[in-house]
Amino acid sequence: MANKVKSDIEIASVAEIKPITEVAEAIGLSVEELELFGKYKAKLSYDTIHSLVNKEDGKLVLVTAINPTPAGEGKSTVTVGLGDALAKKRKTMIALREPSLGPTMGVKGGATGGGYAQVIPMEDINLHFTGDFHAITAANNALSAFIDNHMQQGNELRIDQRRIVWKRVVDLNDRALRKVVVGLGGPVQGVPREDGFDITVASEIMAIICLATDLKDLKRRLSAIVIGYNYDREPVTVGEMGYEGALTLLLKEALKPNLVQTLEHTPAIVHGGPFANIAHGCNSISATKTALKLADYVVTEAGFGADLGAEKFLDIKVPALDKAPDCVVIVATIRALKMHGGVAKTELGEENVKALIKGFANLQKHVDTVSQFGLPYVIAINKFITDSDAEVAQLEALCKEYDIPFSLTEVWENGGAGGADLADKVISAVETGKANYTRMYDDADSIEDKLEAIVTKVYGGSGVELSSKAQKQIAEFKKYGWDRYPICMAKTQYSLTDDPTMLGRPTDFVIHIREFIPKLGAGFIVALTGDVMTMPGLPKKPAALNMDVDEKGNAMGLF
Amino acid sequence: MANKVKSDIEIASVAEIKPITEVAEAIGLSVEELELFGKYKAKLSYDTIHSLVNKEDGKLVLVTAINPTPAGEGKSTVTVGLGDALAKKRKTMIALREPSLGPTMGVKGGATGGGYAQVIPMEDINLHFTGDFHAITAANNALSAFIDNHMQQGNELRIDQRRIVWKRVVDLNDRALRKVVVGLGGPVQGVPREDGFDITVASEIMAIICLATDLKDLKRRLSAIVIGYNYDREPVTVGEMGYEGALTLLLKEALKPNLVQTLEHTPAIVHGGPFANIAHGCNSISATKTALKLADYVVTEAGFGADLGAEKFLDIKVPALDKAPDCVVIVATIRALKMHGGVAKTELGEENVKALIKGFANLQKHVDTVSQFGLPYVIAINKFITDSDAEVAQLEALCKEYDIPFSLTEVWENGGAGGADLADKVISAVETGKANYTRMYDDADSIEDKLEAIVTKVYGGSGVELSSKAQKQIAEFKKYGWDRYPICMAKTQYSLTDDPTMLGRPTDFVIHIREFIPKLGAGFIVALTGDVMTMPGLPKKPAALNMDVDEKGNAMGLF
Repeated sequence: MANKVKSDIEIASVAEIKPITEVAEAIGLSVEELELFGKYKAKLSYDTIHSLVNKEDGKLVLVTAINPTPAGEGKSTVTVGLGDALAKKRKTMIALREPSLGPTMGVKGGATGGGYAQVIPMEDINLHFTGDFHAITAANNALSAFIDNHMQQGNELRIDQRRIVWKRVVDLNDRALRKVVVGLGGPVQGVPREDGFDITVASEIMAIICLATDLKDLKRRLSAIVIGYNYDREPVTVGEMGYEGALTLLLKEALKPNLVQTLEHTPAIVHGGPFANIAHGCNSISATKTALKLADYVVTEAGFGADLGAEKFLDIKVPALDKAPDCVVIVATIRALKMHGGVAKTELGEENVKALIKGFANLQKHVDTVSQFGLPYVIAINKFITDSDAEVAQLEALCKEYDIPFSLTEVWENGGAGGADLADKVISAVETGKANYTRMYDDADSIEDKLEAIVTKVYGGSGVELSSKAQKQIAEFKKYGWDRYPICMAKTQYSLTDDPTMLGRPTDFVIHIREFIPKLGAGFIVALTGDVMTMPGLPKKPAALNMDVDEKGNAMGLF
Repeated sequence: MANKVKSDIEIASVAEIKPITEVAEAIGLSVEELELFGKYKAKLSYDTIHSLVNKEDGKLVLVTAINPTPAGEGKSTVTVGLGDALAKKRKTMIALREPSLGPTMGVKGGATGGGYAQVIPMEDINLHFTGDFHAITAANNALSAFIDNHMQQGNELRIDQRRIVWKRVVDLNDRALRKVVVGLGGPVQGVPREDGFDITVASEIMAIICLATDLKDLKRRLSAIVIGYNYDREPVTVGEMGYEGALTLLLKEALKPNLVQTLEHTPAIVHGGPFANIAHGCNSISATKTALKLADYVVTEAGFGADLGAEKFLDIKVPALDKAPDCVVIVATIRALKMHGGVAKTELGEENVKALIKGFANLQKHVDTVSQFGLPYVIAINKFITDSDAEVAQLEALCKEYDIPFSLTEVWENGGAGGADLADKVISAVETGKANYTRMYDDADSIEDKLEAIVTKVYGGSGVELSSKAQKQIAEFKKYGWDRYPICMAKTQYSLTDDPTMLGRPTDFVIHIREFIPKLGAGFIVALTGDVMTMPGLPKKPAALNMDVDEKGNAMGLF
């Protein structure tokens, strides 16, 4: 443990940072292959990416977690720390998601790891970074403007203003924009209609940027977006409107992966960041693919717990990536397992071995899930200062009892050195080559069968209940051939069920599908269970109130 | 004349472009003083700017124009061409505004000059560039989210939701967002209220970025923004809400000027771009100031005609810049003068000496205005292929008759070589040192006297008529001490009057002031005359329909 607890920005701002050209050189990239953004960030050019196509892929390590709790698991921190630890033994890169500006302004807490396991320059990454999210916001909202303009200028495609599903976005937490009416003020100002704003990370374009394999695929996906329905209730696409070229133009820089470094100078690609509820919650194909070409080991993460992020990584991203993980790391903390065992957040400081034993079941379910995907795994227990010796001993005993490989990590306090044992166990799992990836379902399966597979195999539920609307939609989707797409579940991250209060490892539950949203550009069908938040709100005292800049331009109060 | 007419992007895309490090070296900046954005763009760091503070200012040349007409005057093109021409004789830099994405997507026609007088890389500059406008959009809308959140979370400052004047923005032409209702959906989704979106260039934050002298001044200005009024009708500021630090943090990179080059490798700072109606229409103080420190001659421009852009440059920007122009160039074309003389756009191909003589009066008024500001001037006649010999001869005769120095330029066709004569005349005007700048009014004058000065001296009108609302506001503003701010006129650019159809040089007219908008962050009071468009719409066939990207990432169809 460190003697004095420093904030993330205190650690990051005094860190020695190498010019990104040096970091790139270490993985064989010359300055000519970079598009620099200042001294410490760079995009990789299309020429660079194309030049790597025929290289062999490195090994892929996916970091996931138990169902998240307010106690915190530190998944990004473990991802960064594991990367730093592996880098001492193998040629390693990290591939992470970009943070959204909205939560940064709203809630204290970064998205670039923590303590001595961070990617830097953290203030740039947490603010505008290389402008990817701004480009996505601009493209998303340009499409909205094109739609409203189309209706205003004669509405040749007969778009039904009551059935437009394409929403506007801002990369902010702004609850007042959830439900709005636009086009007011008379005939010159447009066609009045209901609309709403999502946060940018919920934009289908964010998911598209993360799943597109190249510019051509990006344009094809943009063209396939369903923006709404015409007066005959037939889908209207971007391709029919003719704007896929302009949208691709607006996004051509945003598709290029961003290179930064960790506090220990391990090269990290930080690129793309779709929501893990309404979308698939993984960083971009271009980031992961490029990292796989440049390094022998790539550590990446997926959003929320293994039931959401890892399932989508494995069922949605892997087929497009054309590479499955060689090992999965499942992150948990003793605190979080105790919450899954019934302890309230305020009582987590007290030793409670019984609750730990009970909560261990949540971890076990995710272990079972990863096994069903045919992948080897290692549990990473992210150590906290409040963990008692008895709790640690009990957890070790449980893992031994069930033959679960695990490692205690102290990456927050010690960076890569705190993850050395985890790195050894990961290397052992990878290099004994036990990975034998299988998907939970085939694209040719019916929507009902896909849902059944996810719910019974991944969540441990007994089955699926479809609303009458969802049943009607399935019939309609079959007509259009949309039933061949994978399913992207929009479910609470807190529980294996669709009820956020059901912690631990519930059994005999049914998942209720309220509605489907076809995201044909992203290439999946979103299945909504319960209410899904696509635009967060700000708290009473937003983190922004503490932020400032000194006269030299240094950030203050950012975490 | 070039034998074959090429489009701007054809010319720009085959142009030889130098690494920006080389361009910077030519003006004495090392690579360490730059923050690179790829190979051809850079921001100048605060350290670089601070290191220049004690250097002497170069000479400043302001390019303005007659009242714009649909015939086009080519002010940016002349600015770039004059810069290239001066660069052959003196150490010269250009300081321009950044283009807005909205018009780029909407209407064919770039904002980076044209023909062989362009700043490059034009596709980057016209799209996301270095992200300045996106940062301004994010900061503007973050403030809106903070305001709505404040009302939702108890409304401590008692903000009246009917009297919020701070609007949201997008950098798009999106008429459907002009008038909206936000906060719908019940008590959890916020406080319902009327709102509207402006285009980003109309944001007060855009004006602030362009008038702020450093980060400290930026924060002071952000703090002074009036977001609306409380239930007692008293103003509520950003400073009272406590968000000036966070907004400054979001804008700290956007305040740094951007360095690019012309087709002839003249260094150009392209930075900031406020609307010339609701705001002051000039590029940033930091751009102009930095260029003045780095070069012996700086060519810059102001929006619309001399009645709007130049008046605001001279009455609003110069006091903050602490440097007046040494010479003013007034751009006109024979075609545009003929329109001011009553010719329809469709008939401009026909020779019409009589109309030219009549329309010359518009030019003469702007010459008079510049003289009243105490500044020497040169007329730049931007030659078009349709100009007849008789028309050119007549224009020369008129200029001689009134002793107006003028030059025929062919910068579109020939770049700097087409502006050599203009450059000589500008150098002569500058180096004989006749400039003796006087403002049209003093800050201590009353609002009525300031308006009177602008209308009678700059527009040539007979007086001002205030609506009853405007009269009430003046009384209120005096109470708050706001009458000490300069006036920013929001008037049609097409006429010296407030009626866009009154071309030429009208006399005996009154300007009607409908309403004032205090922009205390920008540091001026906007006076609205007639309807002022702050959110453009898209045409039936937006330019975006022709845009595309090839598989290597090259832009197509961008102008």
